[in-house]
Amino acid sequence: MPYKQAVDALKGEVDRLKLEITNLQVTHSAVGNITIGNYILTRLAQLKVTKMFGLPGDFNLGFLDLIEEHPDIDWVGDCNELNAAYAADGYARVKQNSLGVVVTTFGVGELSAMNGIAGAFSEMVPVLHLVGVPSTTQQKNRPILHHTLGDGRYDAYTIASKQFTISQAQLMDKHEAAHQIDHVLVQCITRARPVYMTLPTDMVHQEISGERLKIPLTRHPATNDPQTEEFVLDLIQERVQQAGGDIAILVDACVIRFDVQEEVKEFLKQTGFPVYSTPMGKTAIDEGYNRYGGIYIGTITHPLVKQRVESAKLLLSIGSLKSDFNTGNFSYNIPTRHHIELHSDHTRVQYGLFSGIGMKQLLPKLTERLQHWYPTAIKLPVEPFVNVVPNAQADIPMITHAHFWPRVGQFFLPKDVIVTETGTSNFGILDVPLPEGAKLVSQILWGSIGWSVGSALGAAFAAREVGKERVILFVGEGSLQLTVQELSPMIRHDLKPIIFVLNNSGYTIERYIHGRTRKYNDVDNWKWTSILDTFGANLGKKYQSYMVETRAELDKLLNTPGFGAADKIQLVEVMMPALDAPQALERQAELTGKGNTYAP
Amino acid sequence: MPYKQAVDALKGEVDRLKLEITNLQVTHSAVGNITIGNYILTRLAQLKVTKMFGLPGDFNLGFLDLIEEHPDIDWVGDCNELNAAYAADGYARVKQNSLGVVVTTFGVGELSAMNGIAGAFSEMVPVLHLVGVPSTTQQKNRPILHHTLGDGRYDAYTIASKQFTISQAQLMDKHEAAHQIDHVLVQCITRARPVYMTLPTDMVHQEISGERLKIPLTRHPATNDPQTEEFVLDLIQERVQQAGGDIAILVDACVIRFDVQEEVKEFLKQTGFPVYSTPMGKTAIDEGYNRYGGIYIGTITHPLVKQRVESAKLLLSIGSLKSDFNTGNFSYNIPTRHHIELHSDHTRVQYGLFSGIGMKQLLPKLTERLQHWYPTAIKLPVEPFVNVVPNAQADIPMITHAHFWPRVGQFFLPKDVIVTETGTSNFGILDVPLPEGAKLVSQILWGSIGWSVGSALGAAFAAREVGKERVILFVGEGSLQLTVQELSPMIRHDLKPIIFVLNNSGYTIERYIHGRTRKYNDVDNWKWTSILDTFGANLGKKYQSYMVETRAELDKLLNTPGFGAADKIQLVEVMMPALDAPQALERQAELTGKGNTYAP
Repeated sequence: MPYKQAVDALKGEVDRLKLEITNLQVTHSAVGNITIGNYILTRLAQLKVTKMFGLPGDFNLGFLDLIEEHPDIDWVGDCNELNAAYAADGYARVKQNSLGVVVTTFGVGELSAMNGIAGAFSEMVPVLHLVGVPSTTQQKNRPILHHTLGDGRYDAYTIASKQFTISQAQLMDKHEAAHQIDHVLVQCITRARPVYMTLPTDMVHQEISGERLKIPLTRHPATNDPQTEEFVLDLIQERVQQAGGDIAILVDACVIRFDVQEEVKEFLKQTGFPVYSTPMGKTAIDEGYNRYGGIYIGTITHPLVKQRVESAKLLLSIGSLKSDFNTGNFSYNIPTRHHIELHSDHTRVQYGLFSGIGMKQLLPKLTERLQHWYPTAIKLPVEPFVNVVPNAQADIPMITHAHFWPRVGQFFLPKDVIVTETGTSNFGILDVPLPEGAKLVSQILWGSIGWSVGSALGAAFAAREVGKERVILFVGEGSLQLTVQELSPMIRHDLKPIIFVLNNSGYTIERYIHGRTRKYNDVDNWKWTSILDTFGANLGKKYQSYMVETRAELDKLLNTPGFGAADKIQLVEVMMPALDAPQALERQAELTGKGNTYAP
Repeated sequence: MPYKQAVDALKGEVDRLKLEITNLQVTHSAVGNITIGNYILTRLAQLKVTKMFGLPGDFNLGFLDLIEEHPDIDWVGDCNELNAAYAADGYARVKQNSLGVVVTTFGVGELSAMNGIAGAFSEMVPVLHLVGVPSTTQQKNRPILHHTLGDGRYDAYTIASKQFTISQAQLMDKHEAAHQIDHVLVQCITRARPVYMTLPTDMVHQEISGERLKIPLTRHPATNDPQTEEFVLDLIQERVQQAGGDIAILVDACVIRFDVQEEVKEFLKQTGFPVYSTPMGKTAIDEGYNRYGGIYIGTITHPLVKQRVESAKLLLSIGSLKSDFNTGNFSYNIPTRHHIELHSDHTRVQYGLFSGIGMKQLLPKLTERLQHWYPTAIKLPVEPFVNVVPNAQADIPMITHAHFWPRVGQFFLPKDVIVTETGTSNFGILDVPLPEGAKLVSQILWGSIGWSVGSALGAAFAAREVGKERVILFVGEGSLQLTVQELSPMIRHDLKPIIFVLNNSGYTIERYIHGRTRKYNDVDNWKWTSILDTFGANLGKKYQSYMVETRAELDKLLNTPGFGAADKIQLVEVMMPALDAPQALERQAELTGKGNTYAP
């Protein structure tokens, strides 16, 4: 394993250096054999992009022609740009080692997508936002075109976008275009954040040299400095020695985002240390792994798990992201002197910071250094993380969260992709152990309601390609109203998600934070079982809707083999009490509500 | 009339000066008798705001309590923030002399609204974007809260918002709050552009002095400098003399936006000059006025109208906004030496610019100076702008644009509010003379598809209050998919728009610009006649849907008295050929397509 990774890293380094040389050799050659539009598509295809999301707008139509004609990339017409950005985000999350792409048009389209792009920034998801913009001539003369602010400020949208992307390319000069395109794409895939590119109408068909395309773009990070790395390895080894091997591992979001799941898995297997996950790290490692103890989330953690994590002499957290909802409102009880943190581009050992030492290359070496602890580590106790089987025949027939989540926990299968919406679902899923190869997709830091619907569209496309099986979406009826139209492309493209609509008469997460019985937290009760029919009846596609009001009905549906086979898009309206919520949400909401200090 | 206006202007000036004195006298008094939240609401109520649009989010819930409790302001829960911003825009457009308000939450909510706010900027619509943000303590400590970018940049959203609003207030200090609130509101209403305000959770209930509330906020612009104004009046009078009174008037968007409709009406009545309108100025003056000659839009204009406008010795344009779609792609044939332009804050006479001379005060004086031309002016010919009655029994049974628009033209009634979507509808409506007191609401410069649906929601609330009657929306099925959920609050709030869904199998405006038969311009054919039922069936409200496929069916429906009575929300799916469009659109699209220079 370490050899393979070392080779990959070196190959990446070689490609990076080759590209750098090409940049330096840039000649204003008149010879061109590929259009800029197709140069972009070739790069994206090399990076395994097969779907591009977005809407047509008159400034991107010429580029859409090229997408429609491309042999390996399909255009997914979305119903609006925010949903398209969410879809690109969901696609990138499931199709690791690639990226999501959303194509919009100048002003109106790109600004509609902005919340989705900012979410990808916050949650560290590699997304390219490609915007069709007026011609280079128009950008120089700045007439009052439609989609402009009417005051000649053609740069306003880019200025706004800079806040939410790590790199921007404005393709105004064909001699610079290839370099610019490569640069933003490398930034996107190595730093796992969104980037922004504007493509003027008259640049789409400009011809440039495709010579650079022979050098692949690498997503491998720069090499750790060997001497610093050696020092860090020695230091960690020493600390582990001092702790007598009494270590707990905590995996978090960036394990997924920075593509170190394999390295972490190997590290755990060779060392035998007990491992826990944060909410955002859930499914970074298989939850059926026998040294896995479940979710750690500060004071909200199950008491026994809390005690195990916090009493370890040393906590090694990998890829941590300490946001409020990921840490039980910052309630970790881990003294800095007991804490080692591995990150994508730095390492912390207790109070010491080591810049430039990234976990991708450090982990295999750490595995070698610590694997001799295996006999000791394997004896450290871990409470098994198991699903508590609910009783369908309980006195209360209604479907509460306490019942619902363990019950659907029994329904999950290996390799399911499970998408949960901000709100009750994000919290409800935490206590359910997910099967081998299952992947949880959620947006815990950014928390934009409605995100899960667009995200599920992208996730469903990606799942097909990466050998995942079913896509199962959990969304509240309030959240679904924000982005409901994105069910339509799911039907058109023959995607087959199972969509659980938790109908609990309003924004329950908000009710728990503030305004429990306020009207502003109510939402209209749509006829949810009609929605697939309304969007899909004219398309001649298969779809089916259900409503379940009791535990028995839920049970019966989940046990129907045809339902679980997921051979068509299905929507299940689950009637739940308005003021019922998962325990973890109740506790988080209480803490959040206090922070808001609304009380006069 | 001039006396009344002079008095109004002076009263405004007095209030402005009083507020300025109050600013200078600001004392850090501990005495407070009103909360900041209620101070804001009191100001908004004074400005005749009765509806506030938006969604709950945990950082705005405390403020929503106050809205829900306010006797004169109602909360309109929207289905998503973009739609809410569109609704605030539509509300402000119909309820002139007030403003629209959209309330969102930190990050996720406000960014979703951004396209709507930018549209209000572009189109000059007074909208307050009020954002509930984390507490002042949290903003100082900048923890990684949900809805943050994860990197402590709490100012990123404000930086982005600055691009699309003319004034921003961050209410971080209670002693500054009242002054800040007043300042942004005055900017909003006098300059007719959106403003941005952040309200931290812990500021909502802070008490401040309500003393300033006794001084009303004025929307009257600052007084023109008397000497410059006198000079300008003399100059215009001289030019009119030289032209022998051969003048045409062209009214445009800013007549509506800057509240000079009454002044213009009086000017036209007293002088008798012929008058024309641009697309964005349509209904700024009644289209039934006997000196009104229809729409001028450069080379796209009807030849006779074009000849009348361009052959006048002098063109006086009032409130002009020369965007591509408002001018037939900048194809005015008006030499600068024949052109006088009155604007909100400046005047142009031929090549000369007079800053600070605004039309609001100039117009009544100009009326006095030019009314003696009446006997000459009244003889200048004007072609009557009449509806061409279509033949329902024509050979072609299908509903084409050439048939549809004149036919619905017969259906319109005085005081209708007509909302048209970007796309075919914006162009189709141009040739239809609208009845007395009718108001056209459209977004020709910004042109964000889907806007009309949210806008119609806001327009419908406002229409009720300003004595308008029916609200009639024309939207393509492609555009409606972007924002469809906003039909839901229309049902909930018992609004009764008539919604014509022009189902022409895709984005027809885009097809005309580029990609006529491309798949990316297709949209799924929803079961449109089910949508009201899906959203409304559980609410026990009245609604009705229809589909018309032929001219005869359309005729029959429009002649049904119950239909025109608009006593419930109604949706009409109008089946139209995919490649049919209004003539004006065909010509505009051709010009726009050329500008894009996609051809390799």
